Amino acid sequence: MKKHIYIYSPSSAVRDKAAFKRGVKRLQTLGHEVEIDEAALATHQRFAGDDATRLAAISRAAASGADIALISRGGYGLTRILDAIPYKAVAKAIHRGTQFVGLSDFTAFQLALLAKTGAVTWAGPAVGEDFGAEAGADDIMEACFDDLLAGQGEGTGWRMPARDSADLPPLRSIHDAVLWGGNLCVLTSLLGTPWFPEIDKGVLFLEDVNEHPYRVERMLDQLRHAGVLGRQKAIVLGQFTGIRKAPHDRGFGMQTVVNRLRGLIKPPVLTGLPFGHVPTKVLLPVGAKVELAADDRDVFMVWGHGHGRDHGHDH
Amino acid sequence: MKKHIYIYSPSSAVRDKAAFKRGVKRLQTLGHEVEIDEAALATHQRFAGDDATRLAAISRAAASGADIALISRGGYGLTRILDAIPYKAVAKAIHRGTQFVGLSDFTAFQLALLAKTGAVTWAGPAVGEDFGAEAGADDIMEACFDDLLAGQGEGTGWRMPARDSADLPPLRSIHDAVLWGGNLCVLTSLLGTPWFPEIDKGVLFLEDVNEHPYRVERMLDQLRHAGVLGRQKAIVLGQFTGIRKAPHDRGFGMQTVVNRLRGLIKPPVLTGLPFGHVPTKVLLPVGAKVELAADDRDVFMVWGHGHGRDHGHDH
Repeated sequence: MKKHIYIYSPSSAVRDKAAFKRGVKRLQTLGHEVEIDEAALATHQRFAGDDATRLAAISRAAASGADIALISRGGYGLTRILDAIPYKAVAKAIHRGTQFVGLSDFTAFQLALLAKTGAVTWAGPAVGEDFGAEAGADDIMEACFDDLLAGQGEGTGWRMPARDSADLPPLRSIHDAVLWGGNLCVLTSLLGTPWFPEIDKGVLFLEDVNEHPYRVERMLDQLRHAGVLGRQKAIVLGQFTGIRKAPHDRGFGMQTVVNRLRGLIKPPVLTGLPFGHVPTKVLLPVGAKVELAADDRDVFMVWGHGHGRDHGHDH
Repeated sequence: MKKHIYIYSPSSAVRDKAAFKRGVKRLQTLGHEVEIDEAALATHQRFAGDDATRLAAISRAAASGADIALISRGGYGLTRILDAIPYKAVAKAIHRGTQFVGLSDFTAFQLALLAKTGAVTWAGPAVGEDFGAEAGADDIMEACFDDLLAGQGEGTGWRMPARDSADLPPLRSIHDAVLWGGNLCVLTSLLGTPWFPEIDKGVLFLEDVNEHPYRVERMLDQLRHAGVLGRQKAIVLGQFTGIRKAPHDRGFGMQTVVNRLRGLIKPPVLTGLPFGHVPTKVLLPVGAKVELAADDRDVFMVWGHGHGRDHGHDH
C-alpha cells in the first residue's frame, strides 16, 4: 500500500548522500510517496543545520500529516536541543496517525517524548544506513517496516544465542510491561535529567555501537546503581557492534559483562534481540505495553493492536 | 623530607612495568620510603586483580599508616566496586594523616568518598604515567607534590588562554566553595547514583582524555540538564587531550563546546587549569573549601592550611 513518508534530519549532517538517495529511491520503489524536508541535507558544523533548523525540521515532520516520519540518519544533535523540542506537537501528530521511526541519537528524542507525553514512537530504521544500504535494504527490516505500514505487526520473536540461554532461569511470562530503551549511550546520557522516563516494571532494551565492553559495563553499572535496571521486569540486549578488543582485555568482553550483570540484578537479562547498528533490525514500539515470553531459547515479544497509537497516554 | 608512600592498584592492571619501576625509583630518589602493595602488579582480565583483590588493596592502603597513598595508574575498575569500598576506613586513614592522591578512574573513588564521608582527597599524579614518565617526572607536578608532603601548599594559579578570557565577565571573588570534580567521563558516570556528591555553590573542575568534543558536550549537557552546573559558583576546565578531530566536524571542536556552554549557564567557565592527562599537573584538594579569584587572565585558587585534613567534615 502506498504511504506518505516524510524524511527529515534531526541529528548529524547527511554525509553519505549516495546512501541517502538510494534510501529515498528504495522507498519510492516500494510504492511510497516520499516527501523530503527542505533542510534534510542542511549542514552546520557536524550537524544537519543549526539547532533552530533541526527543531524546525522536527516541527515540519510533525505537521506533515505523513504516515511515517523517518530520520535520514542518527549521529549526534538531539541531546543539545531537548529543552526546545515541540513535544506536544509531536504527540498530537502521533495521535493523528504519524509514526515516528528512528534509532541511535534518535533514542534521546524517543525517550524525552515518552517522559514528557507518553507518546509511542518506533525504534527502527534510518533512511541512509538502512533503506539506502549499499548491499540493499535488509529483507527482515523491510518486512517489519511493511507490517508497521499495514497496521498488522503485532510483535516479534528471536532465538537467543545458546551461550546466553544456558544459565537463564525459566522466564515467567511478562504482561503489561512498558517497552522502552534504545541506544545505551544516549539513554544513559539522559539519566538525572528531566528527559529520562521514570518507568517501573518495564521491558528495557539496549544496543550500542563502537563502545568498548568496559564502557558498556560502566553505563550498565550506572543504570544499575541508579536503580533503573533492578525495577524492570526484563532487560533485553540487542546488538553491540563495532567493538575493538584489545590484547590487554585478557578475556574481558561483552560476554563477561553480560554474565556479571546477570549475577547482579534480579530481572532476567535476555540477549540476541535483532536490533541495533546492524542491517537486520526489527521495529519496536517505544512506550507501548508488551508481553514477553520465552520457550527455551525462543523469545516472543507481543504488543497490542494499533501500534501504540492507543497507548499514547497509558502511563 | 622523607615520607612514607604506599603504592597500590585500584583500577586497571599495570601494563607498562618499566614506567612503574621508573616511578618507584624516582620516588625513592626523592628520598622517600616507598611501600608497594602486594597486589600492585596483579592481573585479572584488564584489571589489577579481581574486584576482591583491588578492594583488599584499598583496605591495605588505608591501614598502611603512610603519609601518601598513590595509585599505580588509572584506567577502569573503580565504578565496578563502588558499593564495596571501605569508605569509613579510608576516611579514618585520611583523618589520621594519610593523603590519597590520584586521577582519571580514581575520580570515582574520590567523589564516592566525598559523597559518603566528606573526606578530602587529592587530584594529582599516578606513579607510572607521572613519576615514571619516560621524559622524566614533570618539575611543576613534583613541586606541587612536594608542597603537599611538606604541608606548605596552599593554592595554585594559572593563566587562562587569551581566547577564553576575552569575553569572560570579571570574576567576582569566590569564597568558601567546595572544590570537586576530576575526570568528566567518570564523574558523569556517577550521576543518578548514591555516589554522586550533592554539592551546591562549589567549584567544579573537569578534564578528560580521548573523548571527542561532541561527547564532552553531551556529558556537559547531561550535567547541565541535571542542574549540576548551574548550581556551582564556577566551572573550571582543565586539559582535554587526545582529541581526534574529523573532517566532518567542520569547525565543531572544544572551543565551540566551551563558548556554547558559557552562553547556557550562569556560573563563569574558566579554562586552562593545569590538570588532566598531561605531564604538568597541579594537585587539587577534592572536597576542600577554596577561594577563587581572577586578575584578567590570571586565576588564583587558594585552599586552607592542613590540606583538607581539617575540612573533612565541613559539609
